[in-house]
Amino acid sequence: MNKEVRVFAPATVANVAVGFDILGFAIDGPGDEVVARLAEGSGVRITSISGDGGKLPLKAEKNTAGFAAIRLLEQLGKSGLGVELEIHKKMPFGSGLGSSAASAAAGVMAINALLDMPVPKMESLHCAVLGEQIADGAYHADNVAPSLLGGIIFIRANEGLDVHSLPIPDELHAAVVYPHVSILTKDARDVLSPTTTLPQCIQQTGNLGGLVVGLYESDYELIGRSLQDVIIEPQRAQLIPGFSTVKSAALEAGALGCSISGAGPSVFALCKGREVAQTAGAAMQQAFLTQDIPCDLFVSPINKEGAKILA
Amino acid sequence: MNKEVRVFAPATVANVAVGFDILGFAIDGPGDEVVARLAEGSGVRITSISGDGGKLPLKAEKNTAGFAAIRLLEQLGKSGLGVELEIHKKMPFGSGLGSSAASAAAGVMAINALLDMPVPKMESLHCAVLGEQIADGAYHADNVAPSLLGGIIFIRANEGLDVHSLPIPDELHAAVVYPHVSILTKDARDVLSPTTTLPQCIQQTGNLGGLVVGLYESDYELIGRSLQDVIIEPQRAQLIPGFSTVKSAALEAGALGCSISGAGPSVFALCKGREVAQTAGAAMQQAFLTQDIPCDLFVSPINKEGAKILA
Repeated sequence: MNKEVRVFAPATVANVAVGFDILGFAIDGPGDEVVARLAEGSGVRITSISGDGGKLPLKAEKNTAGFAAIRLLEQLGKSGLGVELEIHKKMPFGSGLGSSAASAAAGVMAINALLDMPVPKMESLHCAVLGEQIADGAYHADNVAPSLLGGIIFIRANEGLDVHSLPIPDELHAAVVYPHVSILTKDARDVLSPTTTLPQCIQQTGNLGGLVVGLYESDYELIGRSLQDVIIEPQRAQLIPGFSTVKSAALEAGALGCSISGAGPSVFALCKGREVAQTAGAAMQQAFLTQDIPCDLFVSPINKEGAKILA
Repeated sequence: MNKEVRVFAPATVANVAVGFDILGFAIDGPGDEVVARLAEGSGVRITSISGDGGKLPLKAEKNTAGFAAIRLLEQLGKSGLGVELEIHKKMPFGSGLGSSAASAAAGVMAINALLDMPVPKMESLHCAVLGEQIADGAYHADNVAPSLLGGIIFIRANEGLDVHSLPIPDELHAAVVYPHVSILTKDARDVLSPTTTLPQCIQQTGNLGGLVVGLYESDYELIGRSLQDVIIEPQRAQLIPGFSTVKSAALEAGALGCSISGAGPSVFALCKGREVAQTAGAAMQQAFLTQDIPCDLFVSPINKEGAKILA
């Protein structure tokens, strides 16, 4: 058992155009840090939170990282342990980059690391998903699983966490642009029709399957053809100023595909090679800037490591 | 160039529970034979059709095999060639086992073989799909592609024939039962709602992805969990007498999954190992027989060869 650990969990792109609620990947970019240390008494206490502008609850049971940490201690039969957590939010809220998921993933990773990793990360996933659920209301792993495990994660079903790591073609890179506009998750949900047409569903299913085959075969062109969201993106695009211009800019710069990261407003592109990702990312950024929308750009390969111990 | 060839194209199971219009596999079982021979004059003539009860048109342009053959000759710049076709239907119509697709696949295979295979099978696929289209009205390859190419075929999009062979786990076997009841393709289409709910679509997408991952990873349990059709099967089951009993019999006998083959009435099960497939097939057959419905059982590994030259 360690006296103190510091862990990091990265930002993630969920949905990935064709896997609404069932697909996500981690990026090298911003993320959250959690410090856990052994303390007197029992139970989890959050001693400080930085970077949240005072928005997040200090009460551990109400906090995604705290809740996830408490659940993992329970699972490990260690509820009697006294643990203090410091949470350092180092990524924006409401960006569509899985901020609350990163906190939840960092929460379980901190406990697991403090105890010298008594369980594989996968066995802590359920607790991390429960942690995000208190922020988000839904039990889904499309951000939490890649933030914790790294890589490109496909979730056959969220119930029961039927979760699978997909192969990552060597040259696959992501460009992610976070425009500084706000979208309420509620609005992003409310804009979605509860139904879809059968042909759209078939097309989406074909594209999800095509993406999976493309990843297994390192077939970049197939990946590109498959990154077409015919259901969610057409409904949510209106929430992101100039989305179609941004997307066109990415595709013209050679991106394989471009869509909304999670519920937005961030936009991601997948590309073959870092150079294309840089170019496509710069083009997307420029498209937002010409509308006077400041934005951040992150270019990275797929992050394979997920949550990690910093010290 | 040969003077005469005899080719065979196998029966197929389309949809495969979770890939409506985009997934199919070939079985070792019944199929269609086409004999092609060089003849005087030019153009394709059908000299005889056996096994069709007089139902199929002898006029080549109206016949699936004939139409497909004509289109391939055109594509090869050989329309001036005189070719006679004999068609031997050796599988039932309206069984849900891709009867017209087998004819169309055999039609192109016969021409390709007659000319010593000037093009890979994949390059003749478009003509075969056009052949089936005149029987079926729709341009889709979920039966034609596996009948021609063999294996388990995933179609990202029928338009443009974005077609991919999926890996076949060594022990994967199919049990297919054809009950002697008739379903009109029109009824099988009409019973389908033009819309689906978003959660159903997500679930189906997850299951299609799970099946693809399961095939790549030879993960039989994942294949089993993924073979759950939440959209089409619940609507079509009513057209097959005692479907739920038949399905339960297959699953109780150890099948990984069980659903409707194509538009029915045939029912298929996928199983790990020939023995389980035999047992599950016999159980399904028994379930039909107890309703006084005679039926045929075919048990086989996935047919990897597809259309082939017999002589």
